Amino acid sequence: MKDVYANLARLGLELPEPPPRGGLYTPIRTFGRGLAWCSGVGPTRVDGPAVTGAVGADLTIEEAQEAAKLSMLNILAIIERETGDLNSIRFVKLLGFVRSADDFEQQPAVMNGASQLLLDVFGEADGLPSRSAIGVNQLPGGICVEIEAVFERRDEVEL
Amino acid sequence: MKDVYANLARLGLELPEPPPRGGLYTPIRTFGRGLAWCSGVGPTRVDGPAVTGAVGADLTIEEAQEAAKLSMLNILAIIERETGDLNSIRFVKLLGFVRSADDFEQQPAVMNGASQLLLDVFGEADGLPSRSAIGVNQLPGGICVEIEAVFERRDEVEL
Amino acid sequence: MKDVYANLARLGLELPEPPPRGGLYTPIRTFGRGLAWCSGVGPTRVDGPAVTGAVGADLTIEEAQEAAKLSMLNILAIIERETGDLNSIRFVKLLGFVRSADDFEQQPAVMNGASQLLLDVFGEADGLPSRSAIGVNQLPGGICVEIEAVFERRDEVEL
Repeated sequence: MKDVYANLARLGLELPEPPPRGGLYTPIRTFGRGLAWCSGVGPTRVDGPAVTGAVGADLTIEEAQEAAKLSMLNILAIIERETGDLNSIRFVKLLGFVRSADDFEQQPAVMNGASQLLLDVFGEADGLPSRSAIGVNQLPGGICVEIEAVFERRDEVEL
Repeated sequence: MKDVYANLARLGLELPEPPPRGGLYTPIRTFGRGLAWCSGVGPTRVDGPAVTGAVGADLTIEEAQEAAKLSMLNILAIIERETGDLNSIRFVKLLGFVRSADDFEQQPAVMNGASQLLLDVFGEADGLPSRSAIGVNQLPGGICVEIEAVFERRDEVEL
Repeated sequence: MKDVYANLARLGLELPEPPPRGGLYTPIRTFGRGLAWCSGVGPTRVDGPAVTGAVGADLTIEEAQEAAKLSMLNILAIIERETGDLNSIRFVKLLGFVRSADDFEQQPAVMNGASQLLLDVFGEADGLPSRSAIGVNQLPGGICVEIEAVFERRDEVEL
């Protein structure tokens, strides 16, 4: 039986304060039976600047991977606040947009920064969803990566 | 009990004629139990030109917000034609792509033009879905915004 | 009763070897009841180079349509490997990203290369899903198109 909270602690990770809403939307919207959609989240910090810039021009791939990991921690913080139980979550889908210099082609490597965290914390059954990684020329506030997620609450599905 | 049609009338809004299909796809595809996916829709007009251009270069943010609102009215027109009852609809997700000059960073503000309409007409419970706002360098026909939507038919879900 | 395999043979098409995973993700993730999400797939070839370049600059629209068709064949190959029965599949949604020169506006025409294949092989009821076509400045490895798909397994839904 996995324990997301123990795994986070083992990795020396703490959930950040959830980022404030960046527009007119609901952070997490449930649908169907036990499904939920998490709005796009970036590498923002409540107590500091977001990670901005185009990967391949302003940021290295390593910096962008760290930003993708931070974005995923923000997603987990939002899900924790909304559901109160990360142990019941199974990830279905990630859609990751990487702000890319016109000649930067390694969007999947950037997104691996987010995916490796999910895999380490949730394990393969719940933490290795389907995924697309896409390059774009801009993102809100100039952030370098934005990730949206679809997840399933196993406790509700199995009832 | 909300009434979408009364709210539209109160705001002085009329549903436009639904836009024609722009390729080989189905405008609205149902899936699961009472869920439906609405194909990407832009600020087109059946009797006039679409709103084209990159925001931050060819269009101001206010013009783009109006275009996002028009796109959402087109989505409502399509859903009305396909389902015949906007009062049974609950929005789950919006994915908005904003054609952006390379230095334009306010995609969420543009998408708020669409989201404010949904909120005003459907209320918070049904009209404030999860959302992502993404900048891109081009869109079909040079339109400035394209929005796709996932919604739920409450009448089918509750049966 | 349609037969996907007979239709493929009639068109002289063979499913390619499924492309290898391009990062930390699961190629197909099931969710809800009989639903599945296929990770983003491009015009890669197991035994040769992928189709790379920006449409409108490095590639013609016809070359990009062929690449979209190849991407869809790769999707079918992955679904065949994972489910073993393409005849039970109904497509719900395609999301297509077309790597576009800044002045290229015909993303839907490019995606029609993929959609025409689905329509020819699966018929309108199962092969004409909802769709969005989006232009972007870059994609993984410089490929010219990336497509993700949501589908439903009719055999599981109808049980």
